[in-house]
Amino acid sequence: MYEERTVTKRVVFEGKVIRVRKDDAVLPDGRPCTREVVEHRGGACVLAVTEGKVILVKQFRYAYGETLLEIPAGKIEEGEQPEVCAMRELEEETGYAADRLELLQVMYPTPGYCNEKIYIYEAKGLKRKERHLDDGEFLDVCLLPLGEAYALLDCGALKDGKTALALLRHRTQRNDIVL
Amino acid sequence: MYEERTVTKRVVFEGKVIRVRKDDAVLPDGRPCTREVVEHRGGACVLAVTEGKVILVKQFRYAYGETLLEIPAGKIEEGEQPEVCAMRELEEETGYAADRLELLQVMYPTPGYCNEKIYIYEAKGLKRKERHLDDGEFLDVCLLPLGEAYALLDCGALKDGKTALALLRHRTQRNDIVL
Repeated sequence: MYEERTVTKRVVFEGKVIRVRKDDAVLPDGRPCTREVVEHRGGACVLAVTEGKVILVKQFRYAYGETLLEIPAGKIEEGEQPEVCAMRELEEETGYAADRLELLQVMYPTPGYCNEKIYIYEAKGLKRKERHLDDGEFLDVCLLPLGEAYALLDCGALKDGKTALALLRHRTQRNDIVL
Repeated sequence: MYEERTVTKRVVFEGKVIRVRKDDAVLPDGRPCTREVVEHRGGACVLAVTEGKVILVKQFRYAYGETLLEIPAGKIEEGEQPEVCAMRELEEETGYAADRLELLQVMYPTPGYCNEKIYIYEAKGLKRKERHLDDGEFLDVCLLPLGEAYALLDCGALKDGKTALALLRHRTQRNDIVL
């Protein structure tokens, strides 16, 4: 239904994080249109809860000019499996490792113009290891009691989409058990 | 803490939906870096529930090449208030109008490289009116019973971030009442 057909793909910017295209396409009714697309290899992130505390990273985000609290996350490397990326980022950023990960959701952050897929996992069997940040990466790790994280969520202080989504899913599961 | 300072802003692509910059900046430790930024004016969307059914739009998304189920949403026009945008998009896309909107959350979809803010509202006092789509906009409206929407959410079929977030918030509120 209502598919749009690509006529010409044109790369207008090639960066390290993103590639941007401006395509000529055809609307479902046959008329021509242009479509702007931000290409991104995809991201992976991990909700990690240990002893009733959620592991968050506090990080300056240049695009917003703000410091945000987020679950550990990163960009998928070329050819890397999302789960491997999530495991790697968790350990690099926080110094915790997981026995295994469960997929909570694949999230499309902004489908109007971007093709990024964010794989959201929950960590099982957490162990403390060593932190080793990427070169040029600056962040603090915070262990926040779940009650406080939910309170931040309710008052809108956790603005990052993947973080809010992961915590809400976790909370819903807990409620289901209580009910 | 850990702020990055802009040295030079450079626009590398100017589109209708997005503008892309590649900036020279300085890391917290004083070393130079480049930052890719997708600028977007922001979006607004509405969770609208009427008679136990959530109003969704089914729409082809070019960037993914997939048809997605989403809550009604759109791009904020220049100088437009997010709430006005949300009201407008709800009516244009679905033919329903709300007496008022309550802000559920401001969501940052992908803070690693994009400055878009998505304002997520809940509609109160829905009324049936006329649908009038934008030129070149093709979508179907679906009224989905909340139970079915939650089931789609649980099995990962609602991939759009803002839609999943809005529905999870709605569900959490309902659970809170039950508890």
